This record gives sequence, structure tokens and C-alpha cells, in this order.
Amino acid sequence: MKNNKKAAKKPWGGRFKEKTAGSVEKYTESVSFDQRLWKHDIEGSTAHAKMLAKQGIISKADAEKIVNGLQEIGREIDEGRFSFSEELEDVHMNIEAALIKRIGSAGARLHTARSRNDQVALDMRLYLRAETERIGGLIKSLELVLMDIAEKNISVVMPGYTHMQRAQPVLLAHHLMAYAQMLDRDRLRFADALKRINVLPLGSCALAGTSLPIDRAYVAELLGFENVSENSIDSVSDRDFVIEFLSAAAILMMHISRLAEELVLWSSEEFSFIALSDAFTTGSSIMPQKKNPDVCELMRGKTGRVYGNLVSMLTVMKGLPLAYNRDMQEDKEPLFDTVDTLRATLKILPEMLQKTEFNTLEMAASADAAFSTATDIAEYLVQKGVAFRSAHEITGKIVRHCIDKGKTLHSLAIADYAAFSKHIGKDIYDRIKPAASVAAKASYGGTSAASVKEQISRLRKKII
Amino acid sequence: MKNNKKAAKKPWGGRFKEKTAGSVEKYTESVSFDQRLWKHDIEGSTAHAKMLAKQGIISKADAEKIVNGLQEIGREIDEGRFSFSEELEDVHMNIEAALIKRIGSAGARLHTARSRNDQVALDMRLYLRAETERIGGLIKSLELVLMDIAEKNISVVMPGYTHMQRAQPVLLAHHLMAYAQMLDRDRLRFADALKRINVLPLGSCALAGTSLPIDRAYVAELLGFENVSENSIDSVSDRDFVIEFLSAAAILMMHISRLAEELVLWSSEEFSFIALSDAFTTGSSIMPQKKNPDVCELMRGKTGRVYGNLVSMLTVMKGLPLAYNRDMQEDKEPLFDTVDTLRATLKILPEMLQKTEFNTLEMAASADAAFSTATDIAEYLVQKGVAFRSAHEITGKIVRHCIDKGKTLHSLAIADYAAFSKHIGKDIYDRIKPAASVAAKASYGGTSAASVKEQISRLRKKII
Amino acid sequence: MKNNKKAAKKPWGGRFKEKTAGSVEKYTESVSFDQRLWKHDIEGSTAHAKMLAKQGIISKADAEKIVNGLQEIGREIDEGRFSFSEELEDVHMNIEAALIKRIGSAGARLHTARSRNDQVALDMRLYLRAETERIGGLIKSLELVLMDIAEKNISVVMPGYTHMQRAQPVLLAHHLMAYAQMLDRDRLRFADALKRINVLPLGSCALAGTSLPIDRAYVAELLGFENVSENSIDSVSDRDFVIEFLSAAAILMMHISRLAEELVLWSSEEFSFIALSDAFTTGSSIMPQKKNPDVCELMRGKTGRVYGNLVSMLTVMKGLPLAYNRDMQEDKEPLFDTVDTLRATLKILPEMLQKTEFNTLEMAASADAAFSTATDIAEYLVQKGVAFRSAHEITGKIVRHCIDKGKTLHSLAIADYAAFSKHIGKDIYDRIKPAASVAAKASYGGTSAASVKEQISRLRKKII
Amino acid sequence: MKNNKKAAKKPWGGRFKEKTAGSVEKYTESVSFDQRLWKHDIEGSTAHAKMLAKQGIISKADAEKIVNGLQEIGREIDEGRFSFSEELEDVHMNIEAALIKRIGSAGARLHTARSRNDQVALDMRLYLRAETERIGGLIKSLELVLMDIAEKNISVVMPGYTHMQRAQPVLLAHHLMAYAQMLDRDRLRFADALKRINVLPLGSCALAGTSLPIDRAYVAELLGFENVSENSIDSVSDRDFVIEFLSAAAILMMHISRLAEELVLWSSEEFSFIALSDAFTTGSSIMPQKKNPDVCELMRGKTGRVYGNLVSMLTVMKGLPLAYNRDMQEDKEPLFDTVDTLRATLKILPEMLQKTEFNTLEMAASADAAFSTATDIAEYLVQKGVAFRSAHEITGKIVRHCIDKGKTLHSLAIADYAAFSKHIGKDIYDRIKPAASVAAKASYGGTSAASVKEQISRLRKKII
Repeated sequence: MKNNKKAAKKPWGGRFKEKTAGSVEKYTESVSFDQRLWKHDIEGSTAHAKMLAKQGIISKADAEKIVNGLQEIGREIDEGRFSFSEELEDVHMNIEAALIKRIGSAGARLHTARSRNDQVALDMRLYLRAETERIGGLIKSLELVLMDIAEKNISVVMPGYTHMQRAQPVLLAHHLMAYAQMLDRDRLRFADALKRINVLPLGSCALAGTSLPIDRAYVAELLGFENVSENSIDSVSDRDFVIEFLSAAAILMMHISRLAEELVLWSSEEFSFIALSDAFTTGSSIMPQKKNPDVCELMRGKTGRVYGNLVSMLTVMKGLPLAYNRDMQEDKEPLFDTVDTLRATLKILPEMLQKTEFNTLEMAASADAAFSTATDIAEYLVQKGVAFRSAHEITGKIVRHCIDKGKTLHSLAIADYAAFSKHIGKDIYDRIKPAASVAAKASYGGTSAASVKEQISRLRKKII
Repeated sequence: MKNNKKAAKKPWGGRFKEKTAGSVEKYTESVSFDQRLWKHDIEGSTAHAKMLAKQGIISKADAEKIVNGLQEIGREIDEGRFSFSEELEDVHMNIEAALIKRIGSAGARLHTARSRNDQVALDMRLYLRAETERIGGLIKSLELVLMDIAEKNISVVMPGYTHMQRAQPVLLAHHLMAYAQMLDRDRLRFADALKRINVLPLGSCALAGTSLPIDRAYVAELLGFENVSENSIDSVSDRDFVIEFLSAAAILMMHISRLAEELVLWSSEEFSFIALSDAFTTGSSIMPQKKNPDVCELMRGKTGRVYGNLVSMLTVMKGLPLAYNRDMQEDKEPLFDTVDTLRATLKILPEMLQKTEFNTLEMAASADAAFSTATDIAEYLVQKGVAFRSAHEITGKIVRHCIDKGKTLHSLAIADYAAFSKHIGKDIYDRIKPAASVAAKASYGGTSAASVKEQISRLRKKII
Repeated sequence: MKNNKKAAKKPWGGRFKEKTAGSVEKYTESVSFDQRLWKHDIEGSTAHAKMLAKQGIISKADAEKIVNGLQEIGREIDEGRFSFSEELEDVHMNIEAALIKRIGSAGARLHTARSRNDQVALDMRLYLRAETERIGGLIKSLELVLMDIAEKNISVVMPGYTHMQRAQPVLLAHHLMAYAQMLDRDRLRFADALKRINVLPLGSCALAGTSLPIDRAYVAELLGFENVSENSIDSVSDRDFVIEFLSAAAILMMHISRLAEELVLWSSEEFSFIALSDAFTTGSSIMPQKKNPDVCELMRGKTGRVYGNLVSMLTVMKGLPLAYNRDMQEDKEPLFDTVDTLRATLKILPEMLQKTEFNTLEMAASADAAFSTATDIAEYLVQKGVAFRSAHEITGKIVRHCIDKGKTLHSLAIADYAAFSKHIGKDIYDRIKPAASVAAKASYGGTSAASVKEQISRLRKKII
Repeated sequence: MKNNKKAAKKPWGGRFKEKTAGSVEKYTESVSFDQRLWKHDIEGSTAHAKMLAKQGIISKADAEKIVNGLQEIGREIDEGRFSFSEELEDVHMNIEAALIKRIGSAGARLHTARSRNDQVALDMRLYLRAETERIGGLIKSLELVLMDIAEKNISVVMPGYTHMQRAQPVLLAHHLMAYAQMLDRDRLRFADALKRINVLPLGSCALAGTSLPIDRAYVAELLGFENVSENSIDSVSDRDFVIEFLSAAAILMMHISRLAEELVLWSSEEFSFIALSDAFTTGSSIMPQKKNPDVCELMRGKTGRVYGNLVSMLTVMKGLPLAYNRDMQEDKEPLFDTVDTLRATLKILPEMLQKTEFNTLEMAASADAAFSTATDIAEYLVQKGVAFRSAHEITGKIVRHCIDKGKTLHSLAIADYAAFSKHIGKDIYDRIKPAASVAAKASYGGTSAASVKEQISRLRKKII
């Protein structure tokens, strides 16, 4: 047997006669960042101890000591009286060591039928479940704020852009609701991710399960998990739930980067569409006219951080053989950083939006730019029976004529209009006003106030 | 009004007197790659024409001409008789131009109440819906193959690894089922993405909706969409559905990279766990013993491509203001490349697995490596009432003793065992056999044959 | 010996009795994309054959036949008369097979003392050397165009921005030169990469070198390589040169994305700083006032593609053991795509810039925005001996006063100025004109015309 | 003038009457992470003050006070007696505020002719210059260790792999030197990056330069910069130097991930090529035979972190208009994290390698796997005048024959050899020994001991 032979090889025997190098201890420790999991670690251990007692694997008395001991340790940590030690590597060993020190042999029974591999998976899932729910709530609040602002400004017209060029007048409310719709997809994406986060891994042990008569369903019930993981090897080597969360976070931050970009543009002297509140800008004492949209810029910039965290985890997991490998310890910092970034950003953004002043006059003036309602002429012609491509062509000629003659659509005489098409009557002047143009877009999802109100109403119902 | 002023500025008037530069035409065209959307373009236009007629926006006769014309064009393309032109930029203009050429003025009415912005979003969604469903099916087939192989090999024992070190014996079936579980999450992730793909954008027009009395719900019904998009600005500026698909694809490829890595390792002389079929390897005529697992290596390598495509699209969309910007044309190639990669990989992988021979003797021998069942001794002691941490310590001492004396767990005398703990009896020898170790792991999701059979049975039911 | 045992194992013997699966052939072929290396493949083989003959490894007559045969094949390919076959996998085998078919046994001697592993590395390096040099030239051309435009517009003043807010007046020439400086770093970065590209790998053979008396230095000389690779294992498993090129490409595209973003902004009605040429924009026939900066948008968008390609290759190479693994075949498409993107973008960009009209009046007006020269007051005060932080504070108060009273810096009376600081005299009015503000910034690298001219002159000298 | 009009608009007047929101302060502060720049900040300010005095912009007495004040603050920070305040945002304001508090009005003159924009660029460049040099030194040390190990093991033969299959015997020294060569490219890549890091930005001020008579060359001289930046706008908006460093770091970590992967594989029971030192592994008290290569796994995993940091910064900078935008504050954390990761990894890796035992018997046995010297037969035949492709075919037949008959190349009778080719004589037996195979690969860069010794000698000379 080649294996026995190797194991017995002398030079490699006499294991671990040397101490771990100091630099290695520092390189491999995780307690400096995973201590934030302490509450979840205690919660998980408490449920585990109760299950062990219920199944007769440990005594009820021992379980009680464990639960009480953990509670006290929790209090200590909460009050800042607990000192984590790097030598004990991670949050799990720190807490277990403190427990054993406190309650003795009962504590030594806690780690029965589990390993750090399933324990860390459990803590991460408990943590991420809570954070995903919290982020879902923050997104919802942001949606509500956008809807409030939209409703308050339901009649404000602004230019709609394509290619950063003014294209057609739209409602500011409609523009803002575009973001609400993006965010609602984000909300649902996190909710879908939650289904795959909310699964109990505990009881998978190192990788093979256990011969002890554990009751995983009971632990799941105690901890509020919807499902119990199906495969012990997969359970300890899976970080999909982290990556899926990071993917949803990346899309969310992409949306926020778009909104932030627009807020920066709108704050510029050139656009002058909005004035951000003093509380959400920084100034320059030498140029008091300057209100820098720093918060928006940072939101846009933090997109990079979240994208990077996603790439980081995808890279870590690429090509890793089963089951647990230490590479996977690298899951924590990118996840924690992403959660912190999302929470801070989602907290500030609605406050900032609520305090933003919209310069509705400037918006309206910009929306009435020379030919922004040209498409309305084309649709007018289609309604009179002209084929679309012809209507399109006629309108093009009208606009070109206006440019050549220095006219606007408003100032072009009806006779001139008629020269381009006999179908054009005096009612054209009403159609080409921005407000009229907007009001006419009554299609489902269109920019008319009626459509936008219905849109808001449907979204409100959906997110209740 | 600054806008009017600007629009009227002379030097910038006289629009488009110059022809598009040739290099620009080449730089901006998309027909060389978006022509693969032709079927969806025709399908979408057909539904649109029917709706226009139903709503009285165009005549029934015109609609009929359009539908027939599109059908004929579809046949031409299908049979390779259609010639796409780069000058016409994209698949949409190519087909519309051909239609107008063929049926005249009726064709000129097709583009009523839509724009290329919502048309391309429609085609992409129709395309991606079909591909997502197809990929879901391919994943399911792969899961089924894994389950078949698992069942056929239900009693094969192999070493389970952590840190690439042999840890505990597990069933090959259990190890393979870990991948089936990953893949099932992938399947559900794509299914969740599908909910956000399967939404009708048509009728959003350029960005504002339309004043024409369209019926979007009817178009959705004709095209089998579950939902109608809620916001016309969002509809034309949203590529979430592409990115979400790419995210799911990245996670899937990560899983495949792990399996591929293991297949490469298992094919090595050092592991010798499997022999890939000739049909799925390449050799070296000079070293006929060499069977290179090229297909596995390429699968692992193609992970890079899919990750890259995800990063590409996240980058494209970062910081883009609303609504449509031409940057978004860059969505197609990374998506198409990802779909092609996934389809080819998912087609070959199950075939390759089915033809792979498992060297079960080598696996079994490796699983019986010296101390792989040491944890079983610890659990044995726990079952006799020893606290886990003490059981752990006793076992450690036993193993150390074996190493020092050149013994295995099997060859250590019972008296020696008893010296470490009075709780150890003769029944220990049965417990430390790999097969017994595996059989004992009867916890939910554990590696015992019974547990694995139940796992397979549950998964079979789930994916029906 | 476990190895012999395994090799002799019956069930795994009888190698390659089965044909490669069709899907596998398709999955593993590279000729569909690596055929673009044909010229380099022939160039490399020609040099290799000459060396073999010089060293007496093959006869001079055979070498001559090989060289002539390769030349003829090259002509065939060039003229489109050569048909590549997927069955022959890659460009190397296609050409070698054609050679053997054409010249018989002499052709069978070409592959002496090399393998496909070092051959593909050679072809890639020859290809990338040429492309890197070409891209270096294109960057230089772009720099020259920027300098020409800068010189032509040396007196045009525009607002300089921080946080997208007008900060201080600057010269348009200076702003454009900022891009020239970025590009010059790109040029040097590619030149540095070239040092590590321009190394001969041939002669490394499969991975170990050869026992034949080859002369690698001679091959390097024939092919113009500066260095010969030092380690045969490294030579066939190294793709650093591809990744380093992609890194430089990513930074270059980042720069271009910034310029493109500014061109898009400047084309907006809100900025109205430039008018792109018709030849480099696309319009909308219905809104002829609309000139969409599609080319700029695509340039910005294509940044995603290049970033993605970099991530792709970094992912491919992560964690790959030595030496050659088939994953590395995935190096080609991202590299080729990046080269194509860079070449097309760098070709169009200078043409587009040359044809761009600058709306210098609008720029100047924007530069004279209310308080853009406030910092000049502060520097004025410092020159009179006031401590900077006090000067800063005084200026802040002046600006605030202006805002409260509806004044500009120009319209504030001298008495009012003096009330804030006795150091302010009538000469202040000259200092706060944008042109004066710009002219005063005569520090090295500053925005005064004199400084900018020197900057241009230094860069011209540097890139000759 | 539209700008004046806007500035005077009432509702937006009365700037900054509201305090910055607490959440915003937290969101925008950087002192919690940029305080690590304190030494560089003081160094830069000291040089700046000296220059201001030399140019007569401030008095010599004030400069002296500033320099002394800064020195004292430096001492305080160094000794942990300085308390950084989040309210003061960043390290620059913290230090300047402390200076003014300490020395009064002289301190208020320090910020003359600079801004935070060029100050932060300066600090980052000073910091990164030092770190890049330090990392260059660490890489060199690692190269030296690899060369030492290579020399010590110059006669150890191991299998060379392609596709993770044994291909040809090579020297362990040669294999290790492949990594030394990669690392040497890394070293040079960082050295090239250093040229673009080592440039003085100070004196660019906010973005336009200054009207004060500064002497930037003098500051560069004091701070040891090789060049002075050429364009003030570029200087404050450029983060190329960060990204280029991150790119070089990503390639370096990719190399380390490959080495780490091999160390993990070699530590497996299946390979058994090495035994890592106890000090660099972690064990399992229950399975003392288990030595987990955690450090290697973490090194491999940390590749993800560094890749992610690169993507992060590329994303941040994409599409940012000139000049400074607050997004750029996001440059620090990914850079610092990368520097820390590189330093820790490069410090531990050589120590770990030095303490690694090579199981040379196992390596040698594996290198003598049945047919690993088959290519030597082919080269033998070529030396006898057989065309390579024929030699290749003959060898293939020999190996196939051996497999069919259960022979090895060593045990095949000479008569049998001769039946395949009359050119094969008895000297073939010497050629097919692994040691002989290796020794014969005497080509430049090949695996013979002579070649490897020369390789080491050249690299030693190069890095002195």
C-alpha cells in the first residue's frame, strides 16, 4: 500500500515539532475580521447545543450550561469587555475557548457533531441572511422615496435623453420611476438570492456528515432556516451564496452609479437641474458658489469596490477542488466590505434625494428645446393615416426647413406646415407643446402623468 | 432661451452634409454579429404588426402583407439566400429594408409605434429567453447524468479531501452529487433570471412611450411574455437581464471549473482515479500512454472567458446616464459568446462523464490511507459518553502513537487502544474500516449510501 | 513501482481506439481564430529551417525545399486560395500538413527540435511584437494630432472642472494636452511591455529543451528578437506578455473612455462646447438637429470589452500548474479582440478630433462664470504678504458678499473690495479676468500659454 | 450671461447654511485609512515649505517653524500620541490643523501654492515609490532563495508535466528556475512602473498651476523625484501609477498562485513530492498525519483579492471627466490592501520554501514512469538521420508495442527495438534513462544541469 508506506516514512514523521511561524499566524488568522460574526456564532452554537441535548447526545444539564455560558459571553462581547486573541485564529475558537474556560467539561462537548467547516458556513449564512433582509428593506425605502418625489413633481417636464442628446420631453417623475423600477428588480434579485442563502449547512461536519444521531431539521427550525442542505461535501465547499449576493450587489451599485452620474451632471452649471442640499455636498471656502457633489461621486466610485469584490470571489473559487480549502477564508472581507458599502450608500441616498431641490424652470426650458417634439408630428401624421416611414420623412423635412429658416416648430406658419403635408392642420400647435407631448404618451409604461400615476400605484402595491 | 439660441447657431447648422466615414461605418455596425437575432426580429415584428392591425393603427390588409413578407424573408435567411448589408447597420434595418423593397408602402407602416431602442431590447429578450430555457434543460440533463453515475457507483468509496489532503472516506456517489447540487442551484438561478428576462419592452418606443393606441398586453400574449415592462425609459436603458444571466453563467462556469480541475487531477498518474474516454482526450503519437484531458482543461480555461464577459458588461453599464446610449450595443458579443460557451460545454460534459471509467480499486485503496477514519474513533468515544474535545485528544494520541510505532489503526492491538481509553472495545476494528465509516455517516446529507440514495431521490423529484 | 503498474493496467491500455467526438473536435479546434497567425507561423518556420540546416541537423537542400514550400503556401493563403481545415486543429498543423503534401519527406523534417508548445508561443510573440509596434505608432499619431489642435487653439480659454463643477479657467490646449500626456505614458508602457514580448521561445520544445545541437541565438537574430528565453519550462507556460499587453490596453482604453465621456458631454446641448463632424456621428432623420456622438459612446463602451479581456486572461492563468495546459489556448481570442479594438479606435479617434469644431465662444463664456477666478484673488493676496489660509478666508467672504448682493467679482466696487482687505487695489480687476488668470499660471506644467507651449515642445522632442 | 443668472438665483443662494450630515461625514472621510500616509505627508510638506522660503514666497523664519512643527507632529504620530479626527476628513487636514494650532500663522502659510489635489497625489507617489522599491527587493530575495534551492538540488530529477500528465524528466532545479524567471519579469515590471510613479505632481495646485513663482524642480530634487509632471490637469486626475502597480501585482500574484497550486499538489499523498515545514502548515489534532498547506492555499486565494483590487480601480477611473473627482478617493484601500498582501506573501514565501523538504526519491521514481523518455528515442533517431515525423511515428509504434506486451522501454530487447528501426543500437538503453535524458537537453535554456547552472549564473549577474 503506497499510502501506508508514505505515512510511515521517517523524515516526515514526528509531526509538528515546530511552532507555527509568527508571520504565518498573522497571515492565516481571521479573527481580526470575522469577529463581526460573533452574534451569529453564539446563536448557531446555542441551537446546536439544544439539538444535541434533545437527541440525547449531550445531557440537558450540559446544554443548559452551554447556553447560559454563551449568553454571558455574548453580553461581554456586546459590552466591549471581551478580548479576542489572534492566537486562537478565528471567532469560533475564541468563543469556544472562553466557554470551556468558563464552564469546563460541558463546554468541551459543544463541538460534537460539527466542525469549523460547517460552523463557518452557518455563521456566514446567518449573517448574510440578516444583511440581505436589511438591504432589501433599505432598497424598498429608497423606492418609496423615489415614488414620493415622483408624486410631488408629477407635472414637472424635463428633457428625455438618448445619446446624452435631448430627444423627447418626459416627466421628471417618469425619469425617477425608471430608477425605482431598476431598484425593484434589485430587491427581487436579493430576495431570490435569499432563497439560496437561507439553507442550514450545520451537521455536514468536516465534509462527510456524522454517525451521531443529530436532528438537522430541528436546528433549522430553531434558527429559522427554510431548508437543510442536501449534501455535506457541497455544504462546506459552497460559497455560491456569497457570490450570488455579490452579483446582485454589483448590479445594484451599477444602477446607483447611473443615478449618481446623473445627479453629478444635473448639479453642473451647464445643466443646473438640481441643487443638492448643503448637508450632502462639500464646498470650497474660497469659492462658495461651488457645491461639490462628493457624495454622488463617491457612490459612483464605490461601484468599483463592489465590482472588484465580485471578481475577487469569482477568482478565489475558480478551479478549487472539493471540499473545503483555506482559500475560502478570503470570502469574508469582500463580503463584509460590500455589505458595509451597500448599507451606507442605501442609507444616505434617500436622505440626499429628499433634500434635493429640483430646478423645474430650467428643466422645463430645456425640454422645450427647438425640436424635441418632432416625433409628435410624425405620430400626428400616422394618426391621419400616413405610413410611418413617410411621416418620418415629412417631419424630417419640416425640421430641416425650420433650421434653414431659423424657425422653431412653434413659429412655423400653418401654411408652411401644410406645404409639407396636407394632413397637417392647426391642431398641430397644441400637439408640439412639451406638456401636450408628454400628456399624449398614454401608452402602458409611457410618460403621461396618467400612465406614471398608474405605474407608481402598481409599484406601491407590489412592494407592500 | 439658451437652447433655441444654440440650435439656431449657424456654423453648426446644415446638418449631415458629410457622409459617414467608412471606418466609422465599420466601427459602428452590428449586423455582423446581431444577425443571429433574425428569427426573433421577425417574430417580434409579426406580433407587432398584428397588434397594430387589431388596434386599427394599420389596416388588416397591410398587416397581412407584412406578416407574409416577413415569413418569406425568414425563409430566405434560413436557407442562406439572404444577404445582410453592413451599410444597413443592423439586423433590424436589414429586414425592414428588405420588407419595404418586397411589399412597398405596407412595409413602411411596420415601424409605427416602436423604435430601434425597444426593438433591440425585444429581440435580445426573446433570444435570451429561449437560450436560458435551453441552458436550463442542459443543466438538468447534466444533473441526471451525474445521478445515474452516482447510482451505478453507489458503493464505491474514495477519499474525501480537505486542503487537498485525504480527510475521511466518502462515497464517489456523494462526491458527484455535490456537483449535482451545485448545478441544481445554477438551474434555479437561471430560472429566477428568466423571470426578469421574460418581460415585454416593445411599446416603449424611443424612450417616452407613444400617443398611438397600442395594446402592449396583446403583444405580450402573442409572444408569450409573462409581464409588460413598467417604465418606457427604463425599458430601453436596461440591460440587467443580460448581466444577471452573465452572473449566473459565471457561477455555473466556476462550478464546472472545479469539476474540470478534479477530472484533470484524477486523470494524472499520481491520482489514477479515472480514465477519460479516448473520444474526449487528445494524445501524443510519440507517447501513447499520454492521454491529455484537453477538454477538461478547456472547460476550466473557458471560465476566464465567461468571467471576462461579465466584467465587460458591468463596465459598459457603469455610470451611463439614461436612456439609451450606444455603449449598450456592446452587450451582444459577450452575451452571445457566453451562450455559445455554455451550450457547447454543457453538451459535451455529460457525454464525457458517461464515458469516463472510474478506477474504483485505486480509489478504495487511497480511501484506506492510514488514518482517514481517525474521526470515527472520536465519534465512537463520544457515543460512549466521552466529551468531544477529550475524545478528539485521545484519538490524536492514538494516531501519534501509531506513527511512532509504525502501526496503522487496523494493526494496533486492542490492549494498546485500551491504554488510551477504557471505553474502547473490540468493536473499534469494525468502525475504522472505510466502508463502515461511510455507512455510519447516516445523517441527513451525509455520505452513507442510504443518505445518498435519499438525496438522489429528492433531487430527482425536485427537477421533474 | 506504482507507475509501471498503472501504465500496464489492462482496462486502460489499448489507447485511442475511439475517434475524437465531433463535438470535441469543434470544442478544441483553434484554426478558426488562430489562422490569423499564418504569416508569423511561416516566418518562424522559415527561420527554424535555416537554423536546422546551418547546424547540420537537416540538409541544406531540405531546408531550401522547406523555405520555398512555405513561401508558396504563404502566397496561397495571402491570395485566399488556401483552405484551412478544422480537423487539422490549428494553423500550425494546417501549414505543416500542406508543406509535407507539397514537398514530401523534407517537410517531415521541419518539426525537428521544436513542438507546438514553443511554436505557438513564437507565433504569438511575433504577432504581438508587430501589433505592439503598430499600436505604439498609432498612439504617437494621436498625440501629434492633439498637439496640433492644442497649438491651433492656443489662446482658447475654457472652464477647468473639478467634481464636474467649474473651478478655474484653463486653456483648451492645456486640457487637450492632459490627454496627450496620458497617451504618452501609454506609449511608453507598451514600449516597456515590448521588451518582455520581444523574446525568442523557440527551441524550448515541449518543455525540456532538446538534445539536438540547435542555435537559438541564430534564430533570434533571423527573427529580430532581442533576447532568447532563459528557461524552457517557463517559455512554454508563460503568457505574461499577453497579460501585460492587455493591462496596458486596459489603461489606454480607460484614458480613451475619459476623453470619449468628455466629448459626449461637450456635444450635449447643455455644454455646447463642440460640434462633432457629420462623418463621425449618426443622426435621426426625424430630428435632424440631433447629432448622436455614437462613435464616442462606442469608444467608451469598448472599454468594457478590453477590461473583460484582461480579466479573462488573468482568470485563465490563475492557479495553473506548469508547464503547458490547454487552458492557455484561450489566450488568443481576448488578445486578438483587444488588438482589433485598439487599432480601430486609435485610427478613428484622431480623424474625429481633427474634424471636431470647438465652440470657443461658448467655452469662453462658461469660463467667465461668476467666481471662477476667486483663487486668483487669494493668490493676489498671498503675493501681498497675506498668509494663505487668511487670503483664502478673505476671498471666501468676498464671494459670499457678492452672492448676497447679486454682484460678480467684476462688478464689485473697489471700496467694497478694500473693506475686506486693505491689500486689494485697483489692479485686482485685471487679475480676475479669465484670460489674465490663465496667463498668470506660468508655473511649470501650468495652464499659461507660455507653459503649455513649452509643454508641447518638450513632448514633441520626446516622441521623435 | 446664463451663468451669472444662475449664480444669483435666490433659492440656491445662501450657501452651506446646513451642516454636513453625520452619515455623510462618515461616508466621505478618508483619515481612517489614509493616515498611513502621514510620513509622506510630512516629508512632502517639509520640502514644499523649504521651496516656498527659497523662492521668497514665505519667510525663512516661517519655513523653519513649519519644518520643526512638522517634525514634532511626526514624532507624536510615530509614538502613538497623535489623535486623528474624522471631522478633519483626511490625513492632510489633520496634520495641517495640528501645525497651525502649534505654530500659529506660520502654519497658515504652508498651503500656499498647492491644493489637496496635488498634495494627495504627492503623498500617494511617495508612498508607492517606497513600497515599489521594497517589493522589488522582496522579489529579488525570493529569486535568490529559489536559486539557492535550485543549486542545492541541482541533480534532482522530477517529472516535467504538460496537461498535468508526466511528459519528460526535468531537473527540479529547472522547474524552480521557471518561477525565478517569472519573478524576474515581475521585478522588471515593477521597475518600469516605478519610472511612472517617480514623478513630482506637487505644484499643479487645484488643476491649473499657480501664479506664484514656485520652483518645482527644487522640490523634486529635495524629494528625490526623477521627473516633474508636465501637465497640471493631468497631474491631479491621473491614477495610472496606481493601476499600473496593481496590474504588475496581479501578474505577480498569478505567478504565486501557480507555485502555490503546485505546492499544494506536491503536498498531497498522491504526489508526496514535498513536506512543508510544520511552521508553515496547520494540522488537525485528531489526524496528526494531516499537514494542511494553509499558507499555500491562502496565497492562491489572495490572488482573488489582488485581481479584484485591479478591477476596482479600472472601474473607478472608467469614463471620469477631468480633472479631480471624488471617486478617486477610492484609490487608497485597494492599493494599500494590495501592498500589504504582496509584502506579507513575499516575506513568507521564501521562508516557507527554504524549510520545505523535497522527497527526491519519490520525484525520481515518478520521473522514471514508463515512457517519459520516449521523445529521447525520437531525437536519437533524428540524430541518426531519420526525418522527425518518421522518428516520431517509429517511437509511437515502439511504445504501443511495449504497452501491448507489458514491457517498459528499459525491458524491451534490443532485437525488438531493431525491428522498428535499423538505426537503433545498444546505446539506446543509456539514452532512455531519466538522468541521461535530462543531461542531454543541453540546449540554451534546456533542462541539463549544465544549462541550468548557466541559467542561474546569468540570472545572478542580472539581478545584482
